[in-house]
Amino acid sequence: MTAFLTEEFLLNTETARRLYHRFAEPMPIIDYHCHLSPQEIFEDRHYDNLAQLFLGENGFGDHYKWRLMRANGVPEELVTGKGPDRERFQAFAEMLPKAIGNPMVHWTHLELKRYFGWEGFLSGETAQEVWDLANEKLKTMGVRDMIRMSKVELLCTTDDPADDLAWHRRIAEDESFEVKVLPAWRPERVIYLEKPDFADYLAKLGAVSGVRITDLASLKEALKIRLAYFAERGCRVSDHGMDAIPFADLAKIDPEAVLQKAMRGEAVTEEERKAYQFEILRFLGREYARLGWMMQLHYGPMRNVNSRMYEAVGADAGFDCMGAVGSPQEAARFLDSLEQTGELPKTVLYSLNPADTPMLIALAQSFQSGMPGKIQLGAAWWFNDTFEGMSSQLKTLAEGGLLGNFIGMLTDSRSFLSYTRHEYFRRLLCRIIGQWVEEGMYPNDDKILGEIIEGICVKNVRRYL
Amino acid sequence: MTAFLTEEFLLNTETARRLYHRFAEPMPIIDYHCHLSPQEIFEDRHYDNLAQLFLGENGFGDHYKWRLMRANGVPEELVTGKGPDRERFQAFAEMLPKAIGNPMVHWTHLELKRYFGWEGFLSGETAQEVWDLANEKLKTMGVRDMIRMSKVELLCTTDDPADDLAWHRRIAEDESFEVKVLPAWRPERVIYLEKPDFADYLAKLGAVSGVRITDLASLKEALKIRLAYFAERGCRVSDHGMDAIPFADLAKIDPEAVLQKAMRGEAVTEEERKAYQFEILRFLGREYARLGWMMQLHYGPMRNVNSRMYEAVGADAGFDCMGAVGSPQEAARFLDSLEQTGELPKTVLYSLNPADTPMLIALAQSFQSGMPGKIQLGAAWWFNDTFEGMSSQLKTLAEGGLLGNFIGMLTDSRSFLSYTRHEYFRRLLCRIIGQWVEEGMYPNDDKILGEIIEGICVKNVRRYL
Amino acid sequence: MTAFLTEEFLLNTETARRLYHRFAEPMPIIDYHCHLSPQEIFEDRHYDNLAQLFLGENGFGDHYKWRLMRANGVPEELVTGKGPDRERFQAFAEMLPKAIGNPMVHWTHLELKRYFGWEGFLSGETAQEVWDLANEKLKTMGVRDMIRMSKVELLCTTDDPADDLAWHRRIAEDESFEVKVLPAWRPERVIYLEKPDFADYLAKLGAVSGVRITDLASLKEALKIRLAYFAERGCRVSDHGMDAIPFADLAKIDPEAVLQKAMRGEAVTEEERKAYQFEILRFLGREYARLGWMMQLHYGPMRNVNSRMYEAVGADAGFDCMGAVGSPQEAARFLDSLEQTGELPKTVLYSLNPADTPMLIALAQSFQSGMPGKIQLGAAWWFNDTFEGMSSQLKTLAEGGLLGNFIGMLTDSRSFLSYTRHEYFRRLLCRIIGQWVEEGMYPNDDKILGEIIEGICVKNVRRYL
Repeated sequence: MTAFLTEEFLLNTETARRLYHRFAEPMPIIDYHCHLSPQEIFEDRHYDNLAQLFLGENGFGDHYKWRLMRANGVPEELVTGKGPDRERFQAFAEMLPKAIGNPMVHWTHLELKRYFGWEGFLSGETAQEVWDLANEKLKTMGVRDMIRMSKVELLCTTDDPADDLAWHRRIAEDESFEVKVLPAWRPERVIYLEKPDFADYLAKLGAVSGVRITDLASLKEALKIRLAYFAERGCRVSDHGMDAIPFADLAKIDPEAVLQKAMRGEAVTEEERKAYQFEILRFLGREYARLGWMMQLHYGPMRNVNSRMYEAVGADAGFDCMGAVGSPQEAARFLDSLEQTGELPKTVLYSLNPADTPMLIALAQSFQSGMPGKIQLGAAWWFNDTFEGMSSQLKTLAEGGLLGNFIGMLTDSRSFLSYTRHEYFRRLLCRIIGQWVEEGMYPNDDKILGEIIEGICVKNVRRYL
Repeated sequence: MTAFLTEEFLLNTETARRLYHRFAEPMPIIDYHCHLSPQEIFEDRHYDNLAQLFLGENGFGDHYKWRLMRANGVPEELVTGKGPDRERFQAFAEMLPKAIGNPMVHWTHLELKRYFGWEGFLSGETAQEVWDLANEKLKTMGVRDMIRMSKVELLCTTDDPADDLAWHRRIAEDESFEVKVLPAWRPERVIYLEKPDFADYLAKLGAVSGVRITDLASLKEALKIRLAYFAERGCRVSDHGMDAIPFADLAKIDPEAVLQKAMRGEAVTEEERKAYQFEILRFLGREYARLGWMMQLHYGPMRNVNSRMYEAVGADAGFDCMGAVGSPQEAARFLDSLEQTGELPKTVLYSLNPADTPMLIALAQSFQSGMPGKIQLGAAWWFNDTFEGMSSQLKTLAEGGLLGNFIGMLTDSRSFLSYTRHEYFRRLLCRIIGQWVEEGMYPNDDKILGEIIEGICVKNVRRYL
Repeated sequence: MTAFLTEEFLLNTETARRLYHRFAEPMPIIDYHCHLSPQEIFEDRHYDNLAQLFLGENGFGDHYKWRLMRANGVPEELVTGKGPDRERFQAFAEMLPKAIGNPMVHWTHLELKRYFGWEGFLSGETAQEVWDLANEKLKTMGVRDMIRMSKVELLCTTDDPADDLAWHRRIAEDESFEVKVLPAWRPERVIYLEKPDFADYLAKLGAVSGVRITDLASLKEALKIRLAYFAERGCRVSDHGMDAIPFADLAKIDPEAVLQKAMRGEAVTEEERKAYQFEILRFLGREYARLGWMMQLHYGPMRNVNSRMYEAVGADAGFDCMGAVGSPQEAARFLDSLEQTGELPKTVLYSLNPADTPMLIALAQSFQSGMPGKIQLGAAWWFNDTFEGMSSQLKTLAEGGLLGNFIGMLTDSRSFLSYTRHEYFRRLLCRIIGQWVEEGMYPNDDKILGEIIEGICVKNVRRYL
């Protein structure tokens, strides 16, 4: 029997404990994909209270927590609404014990422990104590402190190609903050040509790049200018959120014609949309290869499925779910379309549907070439960012590829406290490796094991970027 | 080393043992979905022998057992046929040891232990001993005794809307039987409009409801009358078996026209069928919301795939299997079609294909609102009602939602002995929670743990109904 | 803590150790599906060095190893190319430690232990020692020694219907080699009518069978002659590699017309291809039933997805991956098309996509009839031939069917050392059963357990063939 969430949390063998404390724990963090606000980092935002930190405000915040609160019947007013912060926190605290087995229990308590030094169990009964304690600490603890306490070496935000990256520049110029904060390129609004504001967006993109966008050629020219702009500011990472990895036979559908339709505000078919997306993503893939950037492909969500709540609360509010499994044929042909000419960039594949994971790891190995771990199976993502989900991702990766080359964890988060997800991941990694070693499935040799663990924690991604 | 199937069966930690014996074991059973015969309950059927109890007769019985017997090469005569009961039982007993790892081994021995007090291992060699012992006990043990011995508080049968529920009335009036037996609404014959007897069925439904069914409006009127009839008799539960959760764009296909075709006995297309099913199921969903009933959606089976045996033995005889994964898009749009107007009832989602489970739990959380655990991931169903299947269901639910709000187990069974499935489930639940607690993943606090376990065993569903 | 890969490897309970050493370890091997060369067996090939044995030459060899080397950035010259053998082996050895959790680590070390008596850990540092030791032993160890050291009783190769089986005859006539080597029928070139050499192949098949193939009837006649030829030479096993189990409505597409198109070199549609495949596979299934052969259906790969490397290295070089899940409807209707007339042969179902496994085991039980375990879920295949993959296959099979009737492991390999996969499988089997027994989920009775384990290791398949 181990007490709740001790320093040996998840480390169920002697080997796991040794490996974690010796190799994993001391490593800094490179968080190569997150959704933090560079403005808040520059301004060193200080949160008024724990409800704002945990639950956000104005519909911007941690939708993982919101979903669980709704699942407990909490009225929306206390979830994303204008309810009093103390009551919102109370509703969250009262829900938490029911989340037994959910990583929310572990994340929350790791956060309360690491940032506020509190070691109890949050529930309706202890909510007041935690509220008082945390709010007192928040008076003097800004987001920069949180980042520093987490030993972050580098973090990459998520940025639109049209963004001027002014906050990144100001952070870089601020000598009082030693953590590197780089932009990451997320051209979502270029890719989703069916959105009502697409033409407006292209106009904006054209304006910032000094190119009048009238066709594919000028769109690509503008994107190249922005890619160079991002690259100058240290960007090394791209990210793409999408329903599916696109592939199309461009002999059948002309993406130029599709773009023209979309710019005129006309509806495009699903096939047309895919042809355009394929054209753009292939173009971008080639540019990434040229620039040496990594290409992250996040696919599989089904967004805003609850239309009543989408009307009420908007996007990214916890009403997304998991789409169908992806097409291995289309994913393979997309990668092949780049590899044929030797222009496949470093690529990280993420599917939201875990049934895709064995397929993706098999696919990745068919396109490896020229450097260790060029094609990566991404860390367990979103609904899979759990004990079982991460275990499964790690084991599938190990059995189908080279775990030793894995670039490891990212937070993908909107919360400044979520670096504890790296801790959670590292503990689980050491737990799994510890079990293998203690079972005689791998040698008990710290020289090799240390390299592997330090590699997965931070050194592999440092080399990869 | 633990001996076979002791009182600590599956309880592999001290905490699991304590939680089970203290909280789970004493709880009564609410079996909110089963296929027992209300007539047999009213008549307190006494089985002639163990073969009839275990293996049924006249092609009505436990197809789980039949399938395993066939997998051992047992001729159909001894499975569902007219072979001598003693030989049928012998063939079952000889098969059983080969079912190592199959829940059949556990269910059977829990049944022999709980209802007949026998603690050996059933095989060809012990078959005679068990046969003699059990048949002796069956002389004085009727199905009401079995239900009572299982501490059943309430059970819900599965009933057609045209059923007069006469047996339920007689059970309710019989003061000598203290267990509540309620009808559950299963409008399968309304939904499967492609069946040859569809028009006849509508005529029958019209007759019992006093409405001449000629179109959608009169069909709905008849259904409303029957819903009220069921509600008056205590019904709180609906259930739907289907290939897939239906969704259709009714602007493109008119369900009224589809119904007219079907009533004329004309073939309908797959798309037409789906449009009709969507129309009916959405109508029913709204009625359930109004009545406060729960809506169970069981989808994914592929039935009667072996046409030679279907000819020989008929439906529900163990020749069904698992269909493809479901469409998350259609499932989401179905739920959304009800939620848009605030008419989504309490809903329990079950897929027969376990690859759907992560998708369903993510989907469920996108429609939570207004009460704890309104949208439920159903218990592991049919082919998934196993050690691994239940473990996976519980962990997926815990990681993607609030396990603490789960309404728990049901038997879904045709056998009066299958309440031991509740015992199996409860042991597994305590095993999993026990492991979490002993690993420091949840506090070792019986006040909270007891509430969670008693909730999942019976208190949550009592509140939910 | 257990040392790396001891004699108790994977056997984590006392019961597992007893069962393995008492029952599994002494059993001989029947390897009913592999890709070994009968010519090399007859000629008792002696490999020049360990690189040739491990990594092959001329693009023929172990693509499992090649994939992992590429995943470590090893240039193709050292993978399948003309690089020096010593350097190729060095690159393999340097990669291996990164394959933590991959069965390659276990297979390789079991091979080094069993065939070369070496017990260290292969890495860049130990590569020279292993190279010297193994090459010395290879001077006197031919492939027949490897087969004998593995206690192989029977192995089935993979052979084209047009093959004259001359090497098999010569092996059979060679009294100095006591291991039975039988052909297995793999009519891949008959089935893939879209291949450019299809017409040439039919001409060749016609020539060896003495039938001029001009239509379906003459094709079937030729196949019957070759089936008889194979049967006379002891063949009892067929095998089919395919994208998907085919089913088609032959009232809509005439397979004769499709064959004529293909023989004229015209392109066929996907639907036409499926109709032809269904026609041929149903015909063959009936013949297998008549002959008493087993029908293996391996479906689900997506081959040669990396077109640049396919140009460079050719097929079967490690650029294959996992296709989408299969259609349960089509698989069921294919089996039903044979079962309707009582002509379904003994069948083994394998999908490369593990998400199909629960579906396949449910499907198999719907077609059981007449003998124990007639329809089998095949052993974990290719990308699933791993610790987790085999565990999952065994547990899914146990929970959905009769594990006691399982025909067990095969190597499916091109390597003469891969019999250690049988050892790996047997250890894992005893591990899983040992855990069940020690947890009280099955009686601790060696009489029953021994029968089950000896059955799965070899006795079941001996009866099945």
